[in-house]
Amino acid sequence: MQDEFIVKGNIIFTKDLGKYEIFENGYIVVGGKLVKGVFKELPEKFSELKILDYGHALIIPGFVDLHSHAPQFPNLGLGLDKELMPWLDSYTFPEEKKYSDSGYAKKVYSAFIRSLWKHGTTRSCVFATIHKNTTKLLMDLFAEAGLGAYVGKVNMNRNAPEYLLESTEESIDNTKELLEEYDHKYELVKPIITPRFVPTCSFELLKSLGELAKKYNVPVQSHLSENLSEISFVKKLHPKLKNYASVYDEAGLFGDCPTIMAHCIWLEEDEIELMVKNEVFVAHCPNSNGNLSSGIASIRKLLERGLNIGLATDVSGGYSVSMINAIVSSAMVSKLKWLESNRTDKPLTTAELFYLSTKGGGKFFGKVGSFEEGYEFDALIIDDSNLSIFNPLSMEERLEKFIYTGDDRNIKERYVAGKKIEEPKQY
Amino acid sequence: MQDEFIVKGNIIFTKDLGKYEIFENGYIVVGGKLVKGVFKELPEKFSELKILDYGHALIIPGFVDLHSHAPQFPNLGLGLDKELMPWLDSYTFPEEKKYSDSGYAKKVYSAFIRSLWKHGTTRSCVFATIHKNTTKLLMDLFAEAGLGAYVGKVNMNRNAPEYLLESTEESIDNTKELLEEYDHKYELVKPIITPRFVPTCSFELLKSLGELAKKYNVPVQSHLSENLSEISFVKKLHPKLKNYASVYDEAGLFGDCPTIMAHCIWLEEDEIELMVKNEVFVAHCPNSNGNLSSGIASIRKLLERGLNIGLATDVSGGYSVSMINAIVSSAMVSKLKWLESNRTDKPLTTAELFYLSTKGGGKFFGKVGSFEEGYEFDALIIDDSNLSIFNPLSMEERLEKFIYTGDDRNIKERYVAGKKIEEPKQY
Repeated sequence: MQDEFIVKGNIIFTKDLGKYEIFENGYIVVGGKLVKGVFKELPEKFSELKILDYGHALIIPGFVDLHSHAPQFPNLGLGLDKELMPWLDSYTFPEEKKYSDSGYAKKVYSAFIRSLWKHGTTRSCVFATIHKNTTKLLMDLFAEAGLGAYVGKVNMNRNAPEYLLESTEESIDNTKELLEEYDHKYELVKPIITPRFVPTCSFELLKSLGELAKKYNVPVQSHLSENLSEISFVKKLHPKLKNYASVYDEAGLFGDCPTIMAHCIWLEEDEIELMVKNEVFVAHCPNSNGNLSSGIASIRKLLERGLNIGLATDVSGGYSVSMINAIVSSAMVSKLKWLESNRTDKPLTTAELFYLSTKGGGKFFGKVGSFEEGYEFDALIIDDSNLSIFNPLSMEERLEKFIYTGDDRNIKERYVAGKKIEEPKQY
Repeated sequence: MQDEFIVKGNIIFTKDLGKYEIFENGYIVVGGKLVKGVFKELPEKFSELKILDYGHALIIPGFVDLHSHAPQFPNLGLGLDKELMPWLDSYTFPEEKKYSDSGYAKKVYSAFIRSLWKHGTTRSCVFATIHKNTTKLLMDLFAEAGLGAYVGKVNMNRNAPEYLLESTEESIDNTKELLEEYDHKYELVKPIITPRFVPTCSFELLKSLGELAKKYNVPVQSHLSENLSEISFVKKLHPKLKNYASVYDEAGLFGDCPTIMAHCIWLEEDEIELMVKNEVFVAHCPNSNGNLSSGIASIRKLLERGLNIGLATDVSGGYSVSMINAIVSSAMVSKLKWLESNRTDKPLTTAELFYLSTKGGGKFFGKVGSFEEGYEFDALIIDDSNLSIFNPLSMEERLEKFIYTGDDRNIKERYVAGKKIEEPKQY
């Protein structure tokens, strides 16, 4: 017998891009990990089930963060006066070195996961470091916390400090070990193939990773077209390949298995076509792209081309783990992009960005990010009563006010795949 | 006898643009409302004074918000899918109408002031509404709270809904009454002449306000060059005048008395020259300028021209009352501006933005925003111990981390002009 229950409250979510579904004082029937239905009036057949009544609170889907770096959590808010490449050298690489130490890793990773929990991020796609053991630890901690995640051991064998380089063989062997051990270990936490990005991975390594992805049928995540100096470096490294995307593509890492590429700011037309064809996901990281002076991705254009897009914090190129912060920054830069594009790329609305931060990214996890029937029940209970509300607000306005002026203090409960998740332990 | 005391802690502030002054475990000697000195070692002659030891906490100057609209506080985070002119019509004007009701005004204004207090804004330049009585109320509430403020009764006699228009005579009479009653009433709270902006003020009204400013020797605040459609509207209204700034200038409202102009995004060269010559302050409002799709002000360029610049939240075109949020947004848009300007307008650093948000805007209030000798002692005590710090950080990094990842929870005490300020009352 599945555990069945009902949550009641002011339900708001997006089934389609930019369009809210609203059930004021509505009901979500949950069976096991899935939504069995969402209703304005509770159907008779469910009348025996236990109702968790959240009163005036908002009930929204949990947030999905399509791209972040757990080991960079200690650097949150630091070093943001730098561009990508010097930032990597002076802040990121020296920090990532420390994750050979599992004591340190346990402290930071458990704090990172607590922070995700606090801010209502129920699913994440996360980079760890090159270190096999602490990558496993990160997966174990996610599983213990009850949050959903794809976690990648990072692969890198060139163009980084010696202390962060692996041999190609080591890199492949360790990745393989991880896949074998963790591919079926947890239901909500899975491994993902994670070449850092082209500059730090030889083509040989990329190709072997592509083979691994296919062999084990696991997804792939990496970075693409973030910063102009990075792109010209890639061109220099691979002069015979057409563009940045084609390096991944030639290596079998560009959509043969489900794939996420973070950033995608300076894409060439050929690259966009390839992404459309191969259904590659874009992880849009507005904060990080601003902070590191990278630019503004043309999300409107990519949406119009039919690409799969989710939002992401990119901790710690982004300074916040909060997905509502990612929504706010996305809105802002989309308006600046609209000006920059001579008013052709229409700004992204709050409703569109809410979709991208829930169902848009959730699609990478399967049926996640919505309260439609058959979706995994990931939800946040939002108490907005402290948000300086002086006038009656519509449901849309309440959500908008939470997104723009709320924070972790407003999130009262979190559910992942039908289970209420308590505050994860700090080690 | 003046009240004298010492605060001890990790002191950081900016005397010059972009350069931190750091006194780790240092001492600030306060006498009455003024800083008498800041020291690494306490001079013998002060050894008898009471020391308030804030231990490991950071001690920074209070924040100065050069531009916000108190009556728009209920709209915080709402309506941000719109541009300036439709946003005014559908959100702002209908809200401002309500401030004929002093019961409503008292509730909102006291909440607004509490919110400033919470977020460490010790001085503000604030727009009220056209309503004389509730503008007085706002000044009384600021004074009761102990925060510093310039508060303006808004003037508008055209191009707005009937319910927000005054006759020219009414507008002048009410402003005059306010000036007479409040110019010397409080030490920290003062009136300021506040024509909303050119579109809503006839030239006759502007000219009379210019005369009032000179007669009573009070400062002036308004909006300038925010949005392209606003600018073309101003051109249409005043076809014979050279540009937007010259309308204010011809009316005697552009630096004859100390003047702040909010936004200043699309300034013409002549306007910049006039601002330099007349020492007009710029209130930079990055959030609002992004939210309302207005654009990015060339702050780097204006700094290089020697203009006085402060940061501002522009509640509720901006979605946050927090000045650290204004710093973060300013940094981000300055990086996008750097890209937009083909890498000529260098990004603003955290240290530069910290200066603008303290001493830069503080200059409008006199000697405010620094811990140099003779400055009014406005200070915040920052406890950053909950900010996920895993490694030893320099003082600069601690400040940066607070700015990027902290919030009101980290602010433990606030001082204004030498006095500790308790949480203001909510009516």
